[in-house]
Amino acid sequence: MTELGIGIVGGGYMGKAHAVAMSSVGAVFNTKLRPRLEMVAAGSVESAQRYRKAFGFARAAESWQQLVQDPKVEAIVIASPQETHRAIAEAAFELGKPVLCEKPLGASIKDARAMVAAAEKAGVVNMVGFNYIRTPASQFARQLLSEGTIGDVTYFRGEMTEDFLADPALPFNWRCEGLANGNMGDLAPHPINAALALMGPVARVMADIETVHSERSGQAVTNDDHSQLMLRFESGVMGHLYSSRIATGRKMGYAYEIHGTKGHIRFDQEDQNALWLYLAEGPEAQRGFRKILTGPAHPDFEPFCQGPGHGTGYQDQIIIEARDFLQAIETGTAVWPTFRDGLAVSEVIEAAWESTVTNSWVDVATH
Amino acid sequence: MTELGIGIVGGGYMGKAHAVAMSSVGAVFNTKLRPRLEMVAAGSVESAQRYRKAFGFARAAESWQQLVQDPKVEAIVIASPQETHRAIAEAAFELGKPVLCEKPLGASIKDARAMVAAAEKAGVVNMVGFNYIRTPASQFARQLLSEGTIGDVTYFRGEMTEDFLADPALPFNWRCEGLANGNMGDLAPHPINAALALMGPVARVMADIETVHSERSGQAVTNDDHSQLMLRFESGVMGHLYSSRIATGRKMGYAYEIHGTKGHIRFDQEDQNALWLYLAEGPEAQRGFRKILTGPAHPDFEPFCQGPGHGTGYQDQIIIEARDFLQAIETGTAVWPTFRDGLAVSEVIEAAWESTVTNSWVDVATH
Amino acid sequence: MTELGIGIVGGGYMGKAHAVAMSSVGAVFNTKLRPRLEMVAAGSVESAQRYRKAFGFARAAESWQQLVQDPKVEAIVIASPQETHRAIAEAAFELGKPVLCEKPLGASIKDARAMVAAAEKAGVVNMVGFNYIRTPASQFARQLLSEGTIGDVTYFRGEMTEDFLADPALPFNWRCEGLANGNMGDLAPHPINAALALMGPVARVMADIETVHSERSGQAVTNDDHSQLMLRFESGVMGHLYSSRIATGRKMGYAYEIHGTKGHIRFDQEDQNALWLYLAEGPEAQRGFRKILTGPAHPDFEPFCQGPGHGTGYQDQIIIEARDFLQAIETGTAVWPTFRDGLAVSEVIEAAWESTVTNSWVDVATH
Amino acid sequence: MTELGIGIVGGGYMGKAHAVAMSSVGAVFNTKLRPRLEMVAAGSVESAQRYRKAFGFARAAESWQQLVQDPKVEAIVIASPQETHRAIAEAAFELGKPVLCEKPLGASIKDARAMVAAAEKAGVVNMVGFNYIRTPASQFARQLLSEGTIGDVTYFRGEMTEDFLADPALPFNWRCEGLANGNMGDLAPHPINAALALMGPVARVMADIETVHSERSGQAVTNDDHSQLMLRFESGVMGHLYSSRIATGRKMGYAYEIHGTKGHIRFDQEDQNALWLYLAEGPEAQRGFRKILTGPAHPDFEPFCQGPGHGTGYQDQIIIEARDFLQAIETGTAVWPTFRDGLAVSEVIEAAWESTVTNSWVDVATH
Ligand SMILES: NC(=O)C1=CN([C@@H]2O[C@H](COP(=O)(O)OP(=O)(O)OC[C@H]3O[C@@H](n4cnc5c(N)ncnc54)[C@H](O)[C@@H]3O)[C@@H](O)[C@H]2O)C=CC1
Ligand SMILES: NC(=O)C1=CN([C@@H]2O[C@H](COP(=O)(O)OP(=O)(O)OC[C@H]3O[C@@H](n4cnc5c(N)ncnc54)[C@H](O)[C@@H]3O)[C@@H](O)[C@H]2O)C=CC1
Ligand SMILES: NC(=O)C1=CN([C@@H]2O[C@H](COP(=O)(O)OP(=O)(O)OC[C@H]3O[C@@H](n4cnc5c(N)ncnc54)[C@H](O)[C@@H]3O)[C@@H](O)[C@H]2O)C=CC1
Ligand SMILES: NC(=O)C1=CN([C@@H]2O[C@H](COP(=O)(O)OP(=O)(O)OC[C@H]3O[C@@H](n4cnc5c(N)ncnc54)[C@H](O)[C@@H]3O)[C@@H](O)[C@H]2O)C=CC1
Repeated sequence: MTELGIGIVGGGYMGKAHAVAMSSVGAVFNTKLRPRLEMVAAGSVESAQRYRKAFGFARAAESWQQLVQDPKVEAIVIASPQETHRAIAEAAFELGKPVLCEKPLGASIKDARAMVAAAEKAGVVNMVGFNYIRTPASQFARQLLSEGTIGDVTYFRGEMTEDFLADPALPFNWRCEGLANGNMGDLAPHPINAALALMGPVARVMADIETVHSERSGQAVTNDDHSQLMLRFESGVMGHLYSSRIATGRKMGYAYEIHGTKGHIRFDQEDQNALWLYLAEGPEAQRGFRKILTGPAHPDFEPFCQGPGHGTGYQDQIIIEARDFLQAIETGTAVWPTFRDGLAVSEVIEAAWESTVTNSWVDVATH
Repeated sequence: MTELGIGIVGGGYMGKAHAVAMSSVGAVFNTKLRPRLEMVAAGSVESAQRYRKAFGFARAAESWQQLVQDPKVEAIVIASPQETHRAIAEAAFELGKPVLCEKPLGASIKDARAMVAAAEKAGVVNMVGFNYIRTPASQFARQLLSEGTIGDVTYFRGEMTEDFLADPALPFNWRCEGLANGNMGDLAPHPINAALALMGPVARVMADIETVHSERSGQAVTNDDHSQLMLRFESGVMGHLYSSRIATGRKMGYAYEIHGTKGHIRFDQEDQNALWLYLAEGPEAQRGFRKILTGPAHPDFEPFCQGPGHGTGYQDQIIIEARDFLQAIETGTAVWPTFRDGLAVSEVIEAAWESTVTNSWVDVATH
Repeated sequence: MTELGIGIVGGGYMGKAHAVAMSSVGAVFNTKLRPRLEMVAAGSVESAQRYRKAFGFARAAESWQQLVQDPKVEAIVIASPQETHRAIAEAAFELGKPVLCEKPLGASIKDARAMVAAAEKAGVVNMVGFNYIRTPASQFARQLLSEGTIGDVTYFRGEMTEDFLADPALPFNWRCEGLANGNMGDLAPHPINAALALMGPVARVMADIETVHSERSGQAVTNDDHSQLMLRFESGVMGHLYSSRIATGRKMGYAYEIHGTKGHIRFDQEDQNALWLYLAEGPEAQRGFRKILTGPAHPDFEPFCQGPGHGTGYQDQIIIEARDFLQAIETGTAVWPTFRDGLAVSEVIEAAWESTVTNSWVDVATH
Repeated sequence: MTELGIGIVGGGYMGKAHAVAMSSVGAVFNTKLRPRLEMVAAGSVESAQRYRKAFGFARAAESWQQLVQDPKVEAIVIASPQETHRAIAEAAFELGKPVLCEKPLGASIKDARAMVAAAEKAGVVNMVGFNYIRTPASQFARQLLSEGTIGDVTYFRGEMTEDFLADPALPFNWRCEGLANGNMGDLAPHPINAALALMGPVARVMADIETVHSERSGQAVTNDDHSQLMLRFESGVMGHLYSSRIATGRKMGYAYEIHGTKGHIRFDQEDQNALWLYLAEGPEAQRGFRKILTGPAHPDFEPFCQGPGHGTGYQDQIIIEARDFLQAIETGTAVWPTFRDGLAVSEVIEAAWESTVTNSWVDVATH
């Protein structure tokens, strides 16, 4: 068991989640590497100090630059806004320090490409924070697919629906400007990552992207509210993705359904401890979608609880992610999703935007 | 109360459903016109005789022609294969007899157009059998929309998923050939009709249509298995439709979700007595999707049962349809969906097919 | 195919349901005996005339006595209040006419016993209207149990919950007086019948019965609002029954769960087309409750629709009941539940009442 | 912010849960007192050493006695078998150290009484580990009840159903002997605690308790498999509790339904992030049970995640529990459920056992 000094950039929504995860991952997974909350950086020194006390870091940094360079900071988690991802990652790689970067990989595809180049040049552990795919249920879905349990897949539908901007009367805020903060920048990466994880590479897309509420507080909203993508995977399978920040009533609509020749899988993160599975086997009269409750029989569940059906939550995904990051550092092995995998997500997004210009199908490979 | 002699062409799946409906509609709805099962026609005289006995018709016809011409047959229900719809309808209109024709309106858009022309020339009652939209739940959804309960609609997703051809080992049958018998011909009309009923006219579509299992019993399958359509309604709202006959596990997946600025409606025909409604009102902590069970407070429920939650079924939709047909005849008023409404469905399908050729958005108006 | 003249006493909630059922049962089930709506009787001649027209009876009776005696009335359905059941049934049996009597079997256990005696003396078909157990789903549950699919049963929980008197402000009405109209008289018979049908005879009971809202419109409510029964079946299995007319939010809570050593069955009539089945077989990771949608693979579904998941409704149960009644008449065979089966329900109720006096377990056999 | 040395007795299922909770509670809730994993004790020195390393304790104790007496251990969590609870708690109170003891409070009611006496004599913080009631959803249910949202409560039904001993072929193990390890000793306390928390004190009970599988591996099972309790609360309200370790298919069936004059609450821990609420208000046609997803609007959710619907899990309840324990220590205020509250649970159990002897209702107050 060796300690590992962790530096986290950002102490907001995700910064806190990573701090908590780093506090408990050792006890949960009995990891070889034991993270030590060494340093936190934030938008201001004051807030960094506040985070230090609240989350139990040893020190607060004056800037992310200081944090990255601090010799006791041995691994870095980037949980600051998308615009900052690239510079922080590049600086860390420069010093050969492993990075876990929150999704999306930078604020643009240009950022994403530069970040992949930096990571691969440095040859150190690099990972993107697509946490949802790490629930026991979604890991189990991947396992079922790879074992062919539902036969040949014939259709995939994914979505990521929330409603935090559904009310047209909500005032203008930072989320209303900057492509990286719009639906395509902020929400779509999750279901696209899910699609890639579950189905493999996307061959081509055709998209419709829309800003429904184009004005808030008298100010023009300059990014999109929701979008749909028709797609074909490289396997030939047909797919559809919908993401939205205006889906009134939906709070955590990270959901998918996968049709196969022998079965059907359905999942909705709003009930993250259940995976629905239909199998076209056994007597016709006894067939039906089964609500499988996650338990010790499913990936990464038992360390959280020995009892099936007792349930894991949002924070637990981040703990699993932390475990994977630590393991990658310990073993020196790349862990999915790497920056390159993060770039693949950005490429689908890029192709989708292009298709709204050409009004036709766009090959992802060319992006 | 006056009797009305009914002639039904076809005694299979839908022929029986209409015969049963005509037997009970009077008692259920206390209709002014009381249908009398006068005559049934089928593919052979033998089967027509069998249907006569089973369903209680007074007489069996030797052919649909005989049925249409019989003076005691005052109204006609067409429940035979799509290829036969047009000729029967034209003959009936020639004689000024009202027609309730099963969906889709003929085997092609050419048929559909001819049938609309014949119907409008004759000026008699003409109606297409889109039954699903007639459940108390879906009627209530339409009512909620028209009253603005969920505010301005921002997204519509519809589907029609079944699995009767999901198993690739199923042998070739008549459903595997002829565009009218494929997914686009047979299944897609239902959700398209739902979309039109709930959302109004479709402005443009972009489709992906696929034959997944291209061979059965060594024979080439010449129509499609499933399809997805991105669409924009004339209102500007974004939409998506998926229909499939290979959706393993789905039995009656006539389903839709409608997002609005103030609420959200969801429905799935597999639980046809529930409508899910989210309202963005009241204390945040008490908001959630409500599972509303249909009851006497909803359209056309009470005649079937005084008790809420006691449920209506498939057959009851056909009874509601029969009531509407009788009422149209009695009052001489057109009843939705008329043949023209059926043609609107065919036009969306036509535009979808075209978009698969041009690989771009296609305006429906030009079809 | 032979016609059978039907006389129905009562044209309210259930009288209408039986009239509609008799109108369509022939077409649905291709029955040998074809019911003819011969005569209807009601509380007044005027209402009988109104029902005649609405439901399509040939004639209206001046009294139930006239109806029973009419030579063209060959079989009788009793759908009038509990107080009238006994006299009508006795008169019908006197003339050797078959009777389908709505639940419960008379207004008291004394009535029930007399009715069984009369029925058995006459030796004609006698049947009680416990319709809910006739859904395809509940018939399938019985089949699963008899085939041992869930192993040895270890626990049964049943309920019948509605909320028609949940609001304490609702004014006094006829339902608020007379034991036969209270929860134990009116609602409890359904789940008790379900328990007997699914689990076999009840050995002993221990009950708690309560009038929660003891006054309405200033008048004393003289019957019960809800009740719970602990019970042991003759098989030794433990059970629980709850019934209530004040269960706010529950509309048709005819529900049960049955635990077995190898599986588990759950059902709720509010989603009457689904049966939930858990099987302790196959890989642990793939186990879960399956939502089985009723379809042609289940009892008595196909005559209503060839499509699985398309759903039957309340009215369809009454049609199945009518089929069974006709078949019993045709074949001269007793059909479950006979009056004797109805009496078994009354005996459990009687034992339950007694246990509230003795405050201890009461053997049903002694009642 | 002050550190607090924590000693945990036991490192199994619950010992680990508490160790993880103590690792993260500070970061999650920004607590004033910051727990330090000081010492762990277990059944053997080897296992204590193993737990020390795995969970990150500073030291392993040679015995629980050593742990209790260690001056750096300032607060104690008891997570060892029921038989050990009493001695450990008494030793801790002797030294004036606060105790969080896992449910149930000792192995017998005698133990429970002694533990309450010791705790109250010492006058230090004492708390029992009823974690389930601490989910955001169940806390919210309590809030709704206390605010009268569903009006006057008329019925309560609770259950705790699992299936870890459902298979009769499972071999004999320690759970099969000793009343404290049976269903009444191990499972029933949870729903009884829920009933007390949600509904207030129980006035009287009438129970049926059964050992269904009386032999395993040829050895006699000497404790119970499942049980049901009819009860009346001091408020007069009727209730029912069922608990079982043989409920095939149920994994975490901590569930309850509460009927009120104005609404209805339902909860099932298998979907712990949803609370179902029916309100008898607004238009009849729009009423239905709402599935409320927990979020920042509900108690203790936000510290885990800012996003509604993102979900908490089993481990998070233990973190909330740890926060409450720390707060009690910091403020010197008793925190529900104290040992006395734990004793109230044991008294209901005692009364239930007695009722199976007397076969009649038993007043809880006399226990
Ligand atoms: N994986 C997931 O489920 C989620 C991922 N995210 C991603 O996490 C990242 C952070 O988002 P949130 O935590 O929601 O934002 P937030 O606004 O809650 O927190 C951002 C933090 O970054 C800090 N920060 C801002 N500028 C900085 C700078 N120049 N140097 C150092 N620190 C700076 C702020 O002080 C703040 O602590 C984003 O990339 C976002 O896309 C966000 C939410 C969910
Ligand atoms: N609204 C709905 O939910 C459904 C609508 N349909 C539609 O109903 C129509 C009938 O379909 P099904 O009942 O499923 O088919 P089916 O194969 O069960 O029955 C077809 C009937 O038409 C008769 N028939 C065939 N050729 C004939 C001819 N030349 N003259 C007279 N009768 C002839 C056959 O004898 C048979 O009785 C189709 O247009 C279909 O698209 C079918 C199923 C569901
Ligand atoms: N199986 C089930 O699901 C249900 C069964 N029932 C049972 O059906 C029976 C009827 O109840 P509802 O239809 O709800 O009552 P209702 O009040 O709707 O109708 C009662 C009918 O009986 C007639 N009637 C009253 N006194 C009569 C008399 N002396 N002679 C002839 N007709 C008379 C009335 O005119 C009326 O048409 C009851 O025994 C009730 O328990 C009621 C509802 C549901
Ligand atoms: N709140 C809840 O949800 C649950 C509570 N429990 C309760 O937690 C307690 C522990 O149960 P589990 O963790 O399931 O048991 P376990 O068998 O997993 O762990 C018991 C631990 O106690 C230790 N131990 C045994 N004898 C000891 C002794 N004399 N001195 C020191 N340590 C000793 C063992 O080494 C082991 O680490 C029980 O009282 C049980 O009822 C258990 C499961 C769930």
